[in-house]
Amino acid sequence: MKDNYYIGVDIGGTNTKYGLVNEKGEIIFSGSFNTKSYSNPKDLVNDIYTEYINKSNEQHIKASGIGIGAPNGNFYSGCIEFAPNLNWGENIPIANIFCDKFQLPVILTNDANAAAIGEKFFGAAKEMNDFVVLTIGTGLGSGIFANGNIIHGKNGLAGELGHTIIKESNRKCSCGRIGCLETYVSSRGILQTYKEECASNGREFISEEMTTKEIYNLALNGDKIAIQTYKITGEALGHSLANLILILDPEAIFLFGGIANAHPILIPTIRETINDNVLLLFKDKVKILPSALLNKNAAILGSTALFNLKVIRR
Amino acid sequence: MKDNYYIGVDIGGTNTKYGLVNEKGEIIFSGSFNTKSYSNPKDLVNDIYTEYINKSNEQHIKASGIGIGAPNGNFYSGCIEFAPNLNWGENIPIANIFCDKFQLPVILTNDANAAAIGEKFFGAAKEMNDFVVLTIGTGLGSGIFANGNIIHGKNGLAGELGHTIIKESNRKCSCGRIGCLETYVSSRGILQTYKEECASNGREFISEEMTTKEIYNLALNGDKIAIQTYKITGEALGHSLANLILILDPEAIFLFGGIANAHPILIPTIRETINDNVLLLFKDKVKILPSALLNKNAAILGSTALFNLKVIRR
Repeated sequence: MKDNYYIGVDIGGTNTKYGLVNEKGEIIFSGSFNTKSYSNPKDLVNDIYTEYINKSNEQHIKASGIGIGAPNGNFYSGCIEFAPNLNWGENIPIANIFCDKFQLPVILTNDANAAAIGEKFFGAAKEMNDFVVLTIGTGLGSGIFANGNIIHGKNGLAGELGHTIIKESNRKCSCGRIGCLETYVSSRGILQTYKEECASNGREFISEEMTTKEIYNLALNGDKIAIQTYKITGEALGHSLANLILILDPEAIFLFGGIANAHPILIPTIRETINDNVLLLFKDKVKILPSALLNKNAAILGSTALFNLKVIRR
Repeated sequence: MKDNYYIGVDIGGTNTKYGLVNEKGEIIFSGSFNTKSYSNPKDLVNDIYTEYINKSNEQHIKASGIGIGAPNGNFYSGCIEFAPNLNWGENIPIANIFCDKFQLPVILTNDANAAAIGEKFFGAAKEMNDFVVLTIGTGLGSGIFANGNIIHGKNGLAGELGHTIIKESNRKCSCGRIGCLETYVSSRGILQTYKEECASNGREFISEEMTTKEIYNLALNGDKIAIQTYKITGEALGHSLANLILILDPEAIFLFGGIANAHPILIPTIRETINDNVLLLFKDKVKILPSALLNKNAAILGSTALFNLKVIRR
């Protein structure tokens, strides 16, 4: 039986990566481009095409389609809509640009959905029909599976958990509103919490260049302010997840993205907060786990798996 | 072509109703029983069976299956689990009891899901794949459709929006916890809000026997305290729905149940609060509507339509 291959593309504000992936989720070859160096998405797609054609000719492999994961990528329109970290305009018809150049079918979704689809087909959710993947990095995204399928919603905008309003926050969000969950649960949010905890504990905040990884290392070494910082983060997330669990009754919630590497310290707090805030019936029902694709390229893998989904196309 | 008929059963704490329904959602005949007068669910099912057999023999019609909507009805287990208003024990194997007596396939779900399924097949959501039906009465339930299918969740417990925690509330809920949405958005919640508004405005609260309908009539007649009561209710619901919309991106949210009759005064406040609390992209995207089955027996209709669903059985 002939294997099927798909191209997965992960468009990010800094780097754009692509890979040729087989049906087992193995990356046959891949490449990376500096997104910021392209003033026009067509030039980027041309360069990916040139490299892809050379490599695929060498290996005598042809792809059957292209899956793209991108911030604010809309499954229905095939456009990247109002992405704050891309300077290519408000509506980028990225699916059409790839389709025109490669002459292959193209499916687009947002990066959090791609991660969730990756978890379903190549990660720890293979046997699950109802689960959520959180992508915690610069911002907070979520990809939701119910009844074995990704939820895109009516307009392709589902999963904006990061912008739900929480009672804990009076912080201004990058979206312009006050009190979004991602003002606490994101790299930016964690840094701000650490800064505030330093101030209220009489510690001088060292540098604006500090990273969440450094704070995590401090916490691992027993630093109380750093531990408290991750506790506050886990509690804010746990409160929101308790409500999400009551609505969706998922089997598991997976943590993905840079911040998810702090799962050994985050997950116990998240679990405890969830158990303190759900109905008795839901206690200890939902698994809180690190993604099985953590630090792998879930967006490349997941976007190729878009072709495996029985999705409703509208 | 021969028409298919199904029996729909709506089990409530006070009354249990059933109806024989055709595929157009027309009730051919129906009956009602006093739930409280039965100390054992088998006796109730026996009485429904006797009446049903008499009526169906008269009309030469045979049903193909039985759909049941019940508070805390679990789709997967076929049991009514921990229903606070039924005194038949913690786990009532109601699907089996009906199946044994009628010798027909039986599907159970909770009343809010039944209402949502009714809206999909016989109401205003026929053309919709992603929507939510809220049942607002003694408590607050929700039935959620995504990708054209009801979300039951991993354990059959999805849709417990009424027990999500909101920042506005410090009230004790019937579930024993503090701050559930239904402590504001339910008949009990509205009465308490009215009572509190009376107290803080120097009006004597007339009677514990007062109904939400009386408060609604006061509001329609321009009574400021009654208007404020419904405004507080609509705002609490609107804040929660704003978060729900960001997660699910539904096409519409329908209001069902006794309290939904106050939709002319509730919906404008709900809409305004949602628009004030969602991302710009979501503004005015979601329709907030009264159910097209309001004051009809959506649970009977919806539970018969359980047989039309392409549901995943686990």
